[in-house]
Amino acid sequence: MTFPPIRVTVWNEYRHERNDECCRSIYPEGIHGAIANALRPHPDLLVRTATLDEAESGLDAETLAQTDVLTIWGHIAHNEVSEEAAERVCKRVLEGMGLIVLHSGHDSKIFKRLMGTSCSLRWRDPEDRERIWNLAPNHPITQGIGDYIELPLHEMYGERFDIPAPDELIFVSWFSGGEVFRSGCTWQRGNGKIFYFSPGHETCPIYHHPQIQRVILNAVRWAKPCGYPPATFGKVPAPESLTPNS
Amino acid sequence: MTFPPIRVTVWNEYRHERNDECCRSIYPEGIHGAIANALRPHPDLLVRTATLDEAESGLDAETLAQTDVLTIWGHIAHNEVSEEAAERVCKRVLEGMGLIVLHSGHDSKIFKRLMGTSCSLRWRDPEDRERIWNLAPNHPITQGIGDYIELPLHEMYGERFDIPAPDELIFVSWFSGGEVFRSGCTWQRGNGKIFYFSPGHETCPIYHHPQIQRVILNAVRWAKPCGYPPATFGKVPAPESLTPNS
Amino acid sequence: MTFPPIRVTVWNEYRHERNDECCRSIYPEGIHGAIANALRPHPDLLVRTATLDEAESGLDAETLAQTDVLTIWGHIAHNEVSEEAAERVCKRVLEGMGLIVLHSGHDSKIFKRLMGTSCSLRWRDPEDRERIWNLAPNHPITQGIGDYIELPLHEMYGERFDIPAPDELIFVSWFSGGEVFRSGCTWQRGNGKIFYFSPGHETCPIYHHPQIQRVILNAVRWAKPCGYPPATFGKVPAPESLTPNS
Amino acid sequence: MTFPPIRVTVWNEYRHERNDECCRSIYPEGIHGAIANALRPHPDLLVRTATLDEAESGLDAETLAQTDVLTIWGHIAHNEVSEEAAERVCKRVLEGMGLIVLHSGHDSKIFKRLMGTSCSLRWRDPEDRERIWNLAPNHPITQGIGDYIELPLHEMYGERFDIPAPDELIFVSWFSGGEVFRSGCTWQRGNGKIFYFSPGHETCPIYHHPQIQRVILNAVRWAKPCGYPPATFGKVPAPESLTPNS
Repeated sequence: MTFPPIRVTVWNEYRHERNDECCRSIYPEGIHGAIANALRPHPDLLVRTATLDEAESGLDAETLAQTDVLTIWGHIAHNEVSEEAAERVCKRVLEGMGLIVLHSGHDSKIFKRLMGTSCSLRWRDPEDRERIWNLAPNHPITQGIGDYIELPLHEMYGERFDIPAPDELIFVSWFSGGEVFRSGCTWQRGNGKIFYFSPGHETCPIYHHPQIQRVILNAVRWAKPCGYPPATFGKVPAPESLTPNS
Repeated sequence: MTFPPIRVTVWNEYRHERNDECCRSIYPEGIHGAIANALRPHPDLLVRTATLDEAESGLDAETLAQTDVLTIWGHIAHNEVSEEAAERVCKRVLEGMGLIVLHSGHDSKIFKRLMGTSCSLRWRDPEDRERIWNLAPNHPITQGIGDYIELPLHEMYGERFDIPAPDELIFVSWFSGGEVFRSGCTWQRGNGKIFYFSPGHETCPIYHHPQIQRVILNAVRWAKPCGYPPATFGKVPAPESLTPNS
Repeated sequence: MTFPPIRVTVWNEYRHERNDECCRSIYPEGIHGAIANALRPHPDLLVRTATLDEAESGLDAETLAQTDVLTIWGHIAHNEVSEEAAERVCKRVLEGMGLIVLHSGHDSKIFKRLMGTSCSLRWRDPEDRERIWNLAPNHPITQGIGDYIELPLHEMYGERFDIPAPDELIFVSWFSGGEVFRSGCTWQRGNGKIFYFSPGHETCPIYHHPQIQRVILNAVRWAKPCGYPPATFGKVPAPESLTPNS
Repeated sequence: MTFPPIRVTVWNEYRHERNDECCRSIYPEGIHGAIANALRPHPDLLVRTATLDEAESGLDAETLAQTDVLTIWGHIAHNEVSEEAAERVCKRVLEGMGLIVLHSGHDSKIFKRLMGTSCSLRWRDPEDRERIWNLAPNHPITQGIGDYIELPLHEMYGERFDIPAPDELIFVSWFSGGEVFRSGCTWQRGNGKIFYFSPGHETCPIYHHPQIQRVILNAVRWAKPCGYPPATFGKVPAPESLTPNS
């Protein structure tokens, strides 16, 4: 059996990398570049990138119509994503597009709208060691990941994380400063699969880490639409007969 | 131990009852009146009503601040609930206010915003018998309800119902026309408890049914806030020491 | 990419088919034969059958060691499955073997042990029409299944079904006699995926129905192990240092 | 309204306290004594204790019939709990008795049978600081508990913890040695509510800690049966008529 490739759009705010020397030195091609470069060698994926400062926040209808799985990273410019673009993305997710929300994307319009909660959390500038524990060793998203991923220095994201109870809890992070965090969570919304994955502060080389890249790759494959038409809704007629037949 | 009463606000769109003779004859005091009258005899509740055509859609900040549990019914005027009112309600739910969403309230701004999905479903005008099966006999919401509630004639609401997977599935309805429906579902969002309960077409005397009243009463008690302060979020300092003490 | 085939063992009690003329006429090769014949044309599967009256209840260690996904059907002889065989199957599921439990298998030692509950339900001899509603149109198990599967005559299985809350609720059945039933449910236990699917009374030609066969095929593919080693448990040393590195 | 008291049985293996000087000095009245003493001042509870070396493992039918909520602690003698006693407890839980499983009770016959999994975990002798993070600030079990409970020295219990996905994840623990653990989890099985709470190594004064006592008190109140008769199962007749009535 051969399958058509999964069409992945790697979307990035792309501001830190242009304005901050430290971030640029880590991600000279942008965070989107690093993620896309990690995905491109895989022949089952067809990868493109998009950024906030493109037309229609980089999330125009045509791009979305040709996207099976969207990954998003944003931080300081969530409010500059247009209402229309955020709404389009949410609608596409309900239709079946997969969505991978990375790091500070927890505070994006898109994620908050799909979750219905504030998605707030606690945080501390990068001064912690983080261990991302694998709680779901049989899940497609953790394939090839061992017991945990260790990040020697990262921003702390800690509980309470104001999200709906995840459908599946994949990762829980430990921080040397004393906090824990539900760092990998899945939800289904409409026909779309959503994965939130917390690593990825802009001044740490997180997206160059092979295990982080592997999780994102796994998540993209997991989140691809099954290809079913969306359910139909609305008024339906009564049936002619429901008498059992022997 | 004595407890302060649960402050309940019964909110209703209150249009059908004023414009439709059939509906008015069933609910001369409005749907809100019927629900409030069923709740008022219980001394642990303090019941008030509010309707769409009051100031600020009947959902002003002061009313909400003094509401522990809000019940909502709406159908033909969802769009007339102001954005601000819908937003205020959602914010209060995340802070801890309980929310009971009744029948066609599935399509309200408030419910759709908290769920993050379309909340669409299939339906048919009242020509079905409905049996609301109790799947959670040990849940506070089903206290005093037996195996099922039978409605001899009701509007059909059928799957697929486009909601997030409920935290708890309380009722599943059977319809004589061949459909099933997740008719009683709970979710937690932020600090707030949410219960969706599907019975209540405006031309059927559903809210006069003692078992339906009992479910709403149970749900109000279940949904009351625990009274905790909302979680705090934001930047936190690193701890001084986390060395174990023996 | 090519994958090794999924090794499927179709296990059947195989008593009704030998003792009951009606059942034999429907399943001349046994229920296991019908299911296996439906799976065999698919080149990604390697299918064998096993039955209760074989050595070690047909569930010996070697068979299980070479099984990726096991389907089980039993009804009148649950107690004749040896304790050791039941225990072996449960252990293999926790290690990662997929398990599909069919119809009256709800009352098997294996299923009850994995669930921890009585798995009791209500039932009525075949005199109902059944509609198996698809509540999870985006799930791998419902691929190619439309809104529902209709069985013109089947045994009624009704709520309350005494199971743990499913991880995923895939199907809910409607019966013409007025009942509903959670007829398709998934759970993860240890590293193993479990799917319960209720259709399949022995005197109805359920396993010849193309959509039922499709669900079982989908479920087998869904339940296959990811191939990870089981998690390790026990005493672990303290780490040398957990100081962050900059 | 007044309610009958909740009848609580605090069951303990009660071996360490008799054989180990360190443990005895911390718990001169046994772990059960410490827990019972913490619960007794509350007038809504009626508290008794039971231990393994009493007749029928301390879990005879009459005791269980008069128990609304059972708490269990065991460690080195799980196998000495009789099969019959374990089976009786599980049956009573399915009927509606609440069950609080403490610490090394994760490896008890009772808990493993109700969960259906190995309930294995990773551990390390007491040399860690533990922070038990409250992930469910609106849950009855966390009432009066702030963001976390801190234990200056405790045995480490770490993931992977081989349990079914909890219905509700209440606490996640952080350990100074680098691990995380789902330390407070709820499940419903049959009509019974189950809470697992991991603190309580026998050589640490955990059950003298006011917040730990508060969690156990809250859990007992949460786990009390609703008082409904268990659901009935078995063969049911077809209805006379299901035609809608207008």
